[in-house]
Amino acid sequence: MKRILSGVQPSGRAHLGNYLGAMRQHIEMAKEYEAYLFIADLHALTTVKDPQQMKEQTYDLAVSYLALGLNPEKTVFFKQSDLSEHAELCWILDCMVKMPFLERAHAWKDSQAKGKKESTVGLFNYPILQAADILLYQPDLVPVGQDQKQHIEMTRDIATTFNNNYGETFKIPEPFIKKEVAVVPGTDGQKMSKSYGNTIEIFADDATLKKQVMGIVTNSVPVEDPKDPKSCNVFKLYKLIAEEKEAKELENKYIKGNFGYGDAKKALLEKIMTHFEEAREKYQEIYPKQDYVYGVIAEGNKRAKEQAGKTLNEVKKKIGYL
Amino acid sequence: MKRILSGVQPSGRAHLGNYLGAMRQHIEMAKEYEAYLFIADLHALTTVKDPQQMKEQTYDLAVSYLALGLNPEKTVFFKQSDLSEHAELCWILDCMVKMPFLERAHAWKDSQAKGKKESTVGLFNYPILQAADILLYQPDLVPVGQDQKQHIEMTRDIATTFNNNYGETFKIPEPFIKKEVAVVPGTDGQKMSKSYGNTIEIFADDATLKKQVMGIVTNSVPVEDPKDPKSCNVFKLYKLIAEEKEAKELENKYIKGNFGYGDAKKALLEKIMTHFEEAREKYQEIYPKQDYVYGVIAEGNKRAKEQAGKTLNEVKKKIGYL
Repeated sequence: MKRILSGVQPSGRAHLGNYLGAMRQHIEMAKEYEAYLFIADLHALTTVKDPQQMKEQTYDLAVSYLALGLNPEKTVFFKQSDLSEHAELCWILDCMVKMPFLERAHAWKDSQAKGKKESTVGLFNYPILQAADILLYQPDLVPVGQDQKQHIEMTRDIATTFNNNYGETFKIPEPFIKKEVAVVPGTDGQKMSKSYGNTIEIFADDATLKKQVMGIVTNSVPVEDPKDPKSCNVFKLYKLIAEEKEAKELENKYIKGNFGYGDAKKALLEKIMTHFEEAREKYQEIYPKQDYVYGVIAEGNKRAKEQAGKTLNEVKKKIGYL
Repeated sequence: MKRILSGVQPSGRAHLGNYLGAMRQHIEMAKEYEAYLFIADLHALTTVKDPQQMKEQTYDLAVSYLALGLNPEKTVFFKQSDLSEHAELCWILDCMVKMPFLERAHAWKDSQAKGKKESTVGLFNYPILQAADILLYQPDLVPVGQDQKQHIEMTRDIATTFNNNYGETFKIPEPFIKKEVAVVPGTDGQKMSKSYGNTIEIFADDATLKKQVMGIVTNSVPVEDPKDPKSCNVFKLYKLIAEEKEAKELENKYIKGNFGYGDAKKALLEKIMTHFEEAREKYQEIYPKQDYVYGVIAEGNKRAKEQAGKTLNEVKKKIGYL
């Protein structure tokens, strides 16, 4: 069975964009692969400066995955900062990587081009920590979006260089290019993202969820008139969650007319409620059980540490630390 | 009792320059202070790429300190790479420090000015690891040479910023400017340094030590003529080790003449042999006892980890990881 690894930052309450773009696949990985999934809180420190927020978002992310059906018996689900091996291997790789190599990272170049000269060293060093995150677990595959492709290339380069200099140590991971998910539009039509404040949160209470869905921006075509489903954010979101048949039915209502955006929003809200009914219930049920949630993470940490510790030990022997 | 901390890189066999410039003080620290001393092998990875060399130099450094009289009951003597806390805190601080702050480091600017554009990320990130090394142990004092003064300033700045943002966590260490030791000349008259190949190794076998001392470059003043002790490398070295009275006697022989450089070298060799007699014997005695040496380090690691673990735990709580 091939091994696959993924990490996810605790960046705020889970929204539809997170779910459709990543979380769903993360949970499904375990069906076909030996799956490792970690909460990337070391990476999150480059942006999350409030300790309460860090703690809550980390906890919330763990609960969200469990509520959405992640099976911690199958997926090794762990928290990055609890495993010292990530930072340790990061330093070791820092000493193997030349500055110009890292300066070529797209994300870094973009941030510099945008005039963010005051970026932190952590942001600069990010791809090396990412390489450490991956290489510690010797995965065959790493799921990546188009924007992360270069970082996997960097990881592969770093691993190859290390293997050439010190002997076969790291498995060279293959990028697993995720099926292109249609961009998930936010309530304002831009890509759904917490930073745009346009999210629909899966686990928000009923009133908030309703408010978010009802707040989706639509055009001003009157109720009676036929409407174009393809250009409507409500329809786009509906289509991403509903069955094909259901989407077709809604599409017809748009085209026929005498169907207002308010009606469409109600249909979407209902769809979300039905689709996430079980998950939303489980979220409420699991959230208060701190011992259970931290216990799941502790168990995942233990299993992850077996593999990470083994790799780091081998690295330390290879470079003469042990 | 004030706490003092120092680190030393495993950069090769101990020579007179190492001893007079640092090791002697490191050993004496324990008389007045609660002393922590570590073998900085994480830092050494920026230059030492050969695993055998890393392992041997680390071991040799430990044996050298023990032979020179370091008392591991008093000084907490440990190996940096055995404590994950250093790399872990380094990453955390990486996320707090802005790039321009680090780019201002003198050592980095020098390396860039010298055209070393291909330096590693480790070399760039070095001052942050150094800050972590220090802050983990909450020392009152950190001995520094003039060239390291800026790094302590950086450590103080980083600690102050962290304390301001997250509440009192780190003790702000004071630099302990070492008494200016006269520059220790190497056998060619330049500063004694392994990289110049001009060292006199304290623990070399008798024949090698003799060869190194006899190879000291002198001028061509004939045996009969009076000689200037102040400009002679042999005399300078002698003066650094011998008692004042002995140095005065040798000085007189130089001035009187009928005393050749060969005679002076013999006097220096004898002085070195006497001065380090006990240490050289102990080195031979300890070197084969691997279990003892690694046992000393393991015990030091344990004591160091108590303090480092405590600080890191507090940091993790403050930033929301725990």
